[in-house]
Amino acid sequence: MITLPAFEQFEKVRQQKPIIHHLTNWVTIYDCAQIVKTMGASPIMAHAPAEMAEMARIASAVVLNIGTLTPELVESMKIAARTANNKGIPVVLDVCGAGATRLRDEKCFELLDETRISIIKGNASEIARIAGESIQSRGVDSAEVTANKTDLVRKLAKTYKAVAVMTGPEDIISNGEVTYVVSNGHPIMTSVVGTGCMAASVIGTFAAIEKDYALASACGLVCYEIAAEQAASECHGPASFKEKLFDSLYSLNNEVIAVNQKVRVV
Amino acid sequence: MITLPAFEQFEKVRQQKPIIHHLTNWVTIYDCAQIVKTMGASPIMAHAPAEMAEMARIASAVVLNIGTLTPELVESMKIAARTANNKGIPVVLDVCGAGATRLRDEKCFELLDETRISIIKGNASEIARIAGESIQSRGVDSAEVTANKTDLVRKLAKTYKAVAVMTGPEDIISNGEVTYVVSNGHPIMTSVVGTGCMAASVIGTFAAIEKDYALASACGLVCYEIAAEQAASECHGPASFKEKLFDSLYSLNNEVIAVNQKVRVV
Amino acid sequence: MITLPAFEQFEKVRQQKPIIHHLTNWVTIYDCAQIVKTMGASPIMAHAPAEMAEMARIASAVVLNIGTLTPELVESMKIAARTANNKGIPVVLDVCGAGATRLRDEKCFELLDETRISIIKGNASEIARIAGESIQSRGVDSAEVTANKTDLVRKLAKTYKAVAVMTGPEDIISNGEVTYVVSNGHPIMTSVVGTGCMAASVIGTFAAIEKDYALASACGLVCYEIAAEQAASECHGPASFKEKLFDSLYSLNNEVIAVNQKVRVV
Repeated sequence: MITLPAFEQFEKVRQQKPIIHHLTNWVTIYDCAQIVKTMGASPIMAHAPAEMAEMARIASAVVLNIGTLTPELVESMKIAARTANNKGIPVVLDVCGAGATRLRDEKCFELLDETRISIIKGNASEIARIAGESIQSRGVDSAEVTANKTDLVRKLAKTYKAVAVMTGPEDIISNGEVTYVVSNGHPIMTSVVGTGCMAASVIGTFAAIEKDYALASACGLVCYEIAAEQAASECHGPASFKEKLFDSLYSLNNEVIAVNQKVRVV
Repeated sequence: MITLPAFEQFEKVRQQKPIIHHLTNWVTIYDCAQIVKTMGASPIMAHAPAEMAEMARIASAVVLNIGTLTPELVESMKIAARTANNKGIPVVLDVCGAGATRLRDEKCFELLDETRISIIKGNASEIARIAGESIQSRGVDSAEVTANKTDLVRKLAKTYKAVAVMTGPEDIISNGEVTYVVSNGHPIMTSVVGTGCMAASVIGTFAAIEKDYALASACGLVCYEIAAEQAASECHGPASFKEKLFDSLYSLNNEVIAVNQKVRVV
Repeated sequence: MITLPAFEQFEKVRQQKPIIHHLTNWVTIYDCAQIVKTMGASPIMAHAPAEMAEMARIASAVVLNIGTLTPELVESMKIAARTANNKGIPVVLDVCGAGATRLRDEKCFELLDETRISIIKGNASEIARIAGESIQSRGVDSAEVTANKTDLVRKLAKTYKAVAVMTGPEDIISNGEVTYVVSNGHPIMTSVVGTGCMAASVIGTFAAIEKDYALASACGLVCYEIAAEQAASECHGPASFKEKLFDSLYSLNNEVIAVNQKVRVV
């Protein structure tokens, strides 16, 4: 086990209040915005091509999510990503539902090939698919992955010179060199729509204030998932869990993070 | 009063975890996904024409809702419905706002004429409108209906060789032969946006695991509305009601269903 | 301090149940609908050009919000606004994110020039921008405004012969002649996505039942923000605050409003 500067980074978020520009799906768009705001940062959700470049310009990170993609929306994503690339700010891509349809796979690869994605994030089967594995899709929920997960994440990171993040009971985060495993979180998260999407927003928010994107991703997930553990211990089901997740993250402090973080380097 | 195998079917949902593909409105899209997930099933929300056929193919039911329709979205709905028809999986159509505008009426009839809809669901004035009555629309909230409701539902079921479901204080469900009346639920549901849309998602989820769609619809509504009764007994207003509705449904058990279900055949 | 007939107007809303047609953003669309329903009124969210005129015709107010605008959506807004203008019902424009991009500024001015907007609503930097000030945008969150706020609001009201509403710790509401300042509300509102959007929906709902739109706006904000104060006193963070905000507003009574309202004319 190692100790990450998760609270120190969270404090930076609260002080710097970075603007996080999202092009995301229509299902969890509110939750993605609210999780950013809960951490003290400032979400922008905007997708009109005509304002993409200006929006990405005032932002400190861009978060893309293909959950309810259309080809038009992906074109807006490319404009936002390229502007972010030119400005040197991080771009997170949540490969939501990769493997479910050819369209999703194609558009993920287009984004990865035509723009520079800083952080690629997905659940086990999504990351496996983008890393080139053949998988049996369960839509947007994770399906079984037989390959070695750490190897897949490392390989994906090296292929795209990016940070790869595979979320799950254990989150695996790698830049191809250093690989973190975060074991925080709670099984009830899989009963709540949007916990994966919000994880990408948290990662984007931490990447806005920390240039080591693998470290930023790990620190963000530690904070988010410790808040989830706190919430799970007091909830009566998925809806009260979600309410308490936001409330817990809002007031998460150093002591709680210090006692609860479970991270190792592999 | 009769006793339906509502819990047995709910257990099947929890075990089989069917994928429920939605093309729905942008207002309640999160709640539709979350109610499906709360029951242990797996929601997919996707609308790009290019992936409709593949998505419907991995799904066990398709749920359509015209609440914030555009002509383009309805075209995607048709692709999804036709694929579902070919595959033999059920298609639920929530005729949300039927009667409010000519566009809504036209598109409902297009969907009913050009695809095979398994279950037509709406509130009293929406179902009356689709059954050919002249009504004074209140938008998406139900207006007064003077005709005999059971007759309307039976007639609509026969016209389209489908199951028709009229929700309200008493839900009327008919396949033209058998007609169920479910008297569960609570008036506070009318103070919460999305309770009707979620009912359609629940129906679609149960229809994914039970071929008798009238029975599936009745069983789904029994479970959903008993959860609502539990929630109403503990809430302080519409928002805490909604939170408790999800939490109650998540852990709904056989005993609670057995004691509370109120169903008759008419 | 003066006393407004806030409760009397709220009672009218509950009795008349006006239909409030929204063309809003995809982030807070649920909350805008739910806040209207919480007050006993009836929300409609619809944006297809082909049904705009009919929807606006059955409505008692139209609420526009450019939070996730596209040029196409703004064209639908114009149809809805013109129909409302012809019918003599109020149109509220939430200039969400004005100042962040040229597109937003242009589209706000197009709506203001090509249709008659009854009530222009925004936070300090948005209203300042529309009133012609140069501001440093923080996206959809308010940035610093150095000019005299009351002067800006009065000037904007006069320019467009409309009511202007600048929300913030003190809400300033003016029709160019009378200017109200409402000091209700709570700082935690700035930690919740959608509190500004919901304010516009509340204003639209009150304007549907009271022809003096400045008075209606002030009365609506008084009710909404007293509910927020009640919620803040019992919450544990932004998510429980939001739940309690809806619950408090749902059952807000005359006594609570009478004791807590803080309004002055300047």
